[in-house]
Amino acid sequence: MQSFIQWNPTRLWFGEGQIKQLQQELSTAGKRVLLVYGGGSIRKNGVYDAVMGQLLNSQAVVVEMSGVEPNPRLTTVHKGIEICRSNQIDLILAVGGGSVIDCAKAISVGVYYEGDVWDIITRKAESKKALQLGTILTLAATGSEMNNISVITNWDRNEKRGWSSPLAYPAFSILDPAYTTSVPLDQTVYGIVDMMSHVLEQYFHRTEHAPMMDRFMEGVLLTVMEAAPKLLSNMQDVEHRATIMYAGTTAFNGLLSCGTDGGDWATHQIEHGLSAVYDIPHGGGLAIVFPNWMSHCAEDDPSRMKKLAMTVFGIDDTGKTDHEVAIEGIQALRQFWDSLGAPNKLGYYGIDDQRIEELVHKSFMKSTIGQYKVMTRDTVRDILMRSLA
Amino acid sequence: MQSFIQWNPTRLWFGEGQIKQLQQELSTAGKRVLLVYGGGSIRKNGVYDAVMGQLLNSQAVVVEMSGVEPNPRLTTVHKGIEICRSNQIDLILAVGGGSVIDCAKAISVGVYYEGDVWDIITRKAESKKALQLGTILTLAATGSEMNNISVITNWDRNEKRGWSSPLAYPAFSILDPAYTTSVPLDQTVYGIVDMMSHVLEQYFHRTEHAPMMDRFMEGVLLTVMEAAPKLLSNMQDVEHRATIMYAGTTAFNGLLSCGTDGGDWATHQIEHGLSAVYDIPHGGGLAIVFPNWMSHCAEDDPSRMKKLAMTVFGIDDTGKTDHEVAIEGIQALRQFWDSLGAPNKLGYYGIDDQRIEELVHKSFMKSTIGQYKVMTRDTVRDILMRSLA
Repeated sequence: MQSFIQWNPTRLWFGEGQIKQLQQELSTAGKRVLLVYGGGSIRKNGVYDAVMGQLLNSQAVVVEMSGVEPNPRLTTVHKGIEICRSNQIDLILAVGGGSVIDCAKAISVGVYYEGDVWDIITRKAESKKALQLGTILTLAATGSEMNNISVITNWDRNEKRGWSSPLAYPAFSILDPAYTTSVPLDQTVYGIVDMMSHVLEQYFHRTEHAPMMDRFMEGVLLTVMEAAPKLLSNMQDVEHRATIMYAGTTAFNGLLSCGTDGGDWATHQIEHGLSAVYDIPHGGGLAIVFPNWMSHCAEDDPSRMKKLAMTVFGIDDTGKTDHEVAIEGIQALRQFWDSLGAPNKLGYYGIDDQRIEELVHKSFMKSTIGQYKVMTRDTVRDILMRSLA
Repeated sequence: MQSFIQWNPTRLWFGEGQIKQLQQELSTAGKRVLLVYGGGSIRKNGVYDAVMGQLLNSQAVVVEMSGVEPNPRLTTVHKGIEICRSNQIDLILAVGGGSVIDCAKAISVGVYYEGDVWDIITRKAESKKALQLGTILTLAATGSEMNNISVITNWDRNEKRGWSSPLAYPAFSILDPAYTTSVPLDQTVYGIVDMMSHVLEQYFHRTEHAPMMDRFMEGVLLTVMEAAPKLLSNMQDVEHRATIMYAGTTAFNGLLSCGTDGGDWATHQIEHGLSAVYDIPHGGGLAIVFPNWMSHCAEDDPSRMKKLAMTVFGIDDTGKTDHEVAIEGIQALRQFWDSLGAPNKLGYYGIDDQRIEELVHKSFMKSTIGQYKVMTRDTVRDILMRSLA
């Protein structure tokens, strides 16, 4: 095991009706609230009314900012910062999925930074102070509700950047699985792929001895794979929504990397390149790229892919090479994602090899990407070529 | 799944050499430190010197209190409270195992309470304020380093009481597995039984749908059972010490009950009765009682024992009744603990049926005990009788 710190300050309120905790949280957080949300689905599914009811009961002064995009944009973050400053906001309340929360995180650290918040996102400056942030999650996917990570896209530069700060943990997050029953099929599937990908990125570590965390990661994957088909056959089932929702949080709240080197994450960098150029859904991009990253890397070292194949996909290794077992596991993962209806080729989004060099370039927003296997421009290009058709 | 809050404020520094974090923690915690420890083993194994080195480098003013007992006593807590008050202590630093930490927790809430801290321990009063607490763990067992629970024994009344408070979480805990390499065989085994028992208590819940937590609990048990024999064959092995140490923390830091009813805990109550009358080691009492609690309860409802038997002990259920599968699992657990050298009969401690009614009585320090099966005096007596010889 490697040395680590385990610490997560977010209060996670989970379960049906937990919205009632909002009043208690507001009693210490201050009265001037910026309500941040996305395209307005929360106005149709009743979540907006439930949140506003709590805010009114708390005599909060509410300023609204709607229209946060999937792949949230730096320009939207700038707008939020201005609203906070001119309205003396005490608390940002993000109601939505990972995009809304990620945008709110960037606003919260940007409010107290004199320069452009893009400096913090690109790690040129460090955040010293942040506005308090609370979240009401309406989409199970990114885990942003209980971590300090955010991803923002700068369309002036076609750059999609992940960043983190100890100040970016939500103070509280309220997760009511009933709020996710109206999430449509495609978003539900993208969320499932996203949370599974977060586990997989962490699973592809090179720490020799992390037996409990390996079992936890396998446990999250098995749980999601057991619940997902049941959920898709009955999208209103709150119990399966709850299982998926809590798995999504656990997949990426820091726990699963305790004692390991943190995992690989090259696939996420490659997907950020794709989304930065083509604005495709993150979960869709991951579903296409991840198995190809796995088969690329299994050619050098199939050890972790083999372990995954045996523990999660129940592949029998009798009489097979490690590489053969690994490939069977990768095929099983692909089949599972196919069975949910996730895309498996870039052609699905009309992407061909025309801008492939730009995609390679946009994957390298960090100086090195990949840890299970350190990527070069050639290896990234190979993975993208495998992903085309 | 049931509703829950997931929140744990303790900063857990884990790994070899993490003692260096103490200086950073002290920089914000204040300079007047009460150093609490037990029988003095930390003076022999180098931990005392390492801690004092950090304290001196931080220009801390250190007051020492040694001699905290296994099954720590109310009288010792009283003594600690007096020392804190008369020395204007800013931070209590507990260096030791669960007993030392539990004692320090009671001191930390007692300092600011005007009456007898026993009121807080018996839940007649609520703690409103506590001194800051840090811990340096030297024994993997109770999980006290990352939870808000403490167990104190009042020998005037022969009562051993568990209590908790939101204020009783350590602010930080430093876990260096190398500090546990000198723990002798019996204490190592008791610790392993204790942490496995914490998982088992939580595993015997009645929440219908908690698939991820079930897998996490099975994962902790499998990890401990894999590492324990390897550790006992090489007690100096830091890697296996690390695995066991982190499993012990994870077994009882709140995570494993997220979404469940919390589990049973009758066995712990029965063991507290035993320790309150005979002052036997907690882990020893648990090893004796738990399989007997399981076989008693499996007669009414073997469902969870069967699940444990199949997932953790690999029992095949072909052609067997649920009860038969459950019993095979219970036997496998007993065999595993036997293989470590844990006691399996009360006779091991010279306990016979002479004071059995007193033991039954002392098990009922709470109005109801048990949740998987609610205990009566008769059922507790039955479990104790099964445990005699």
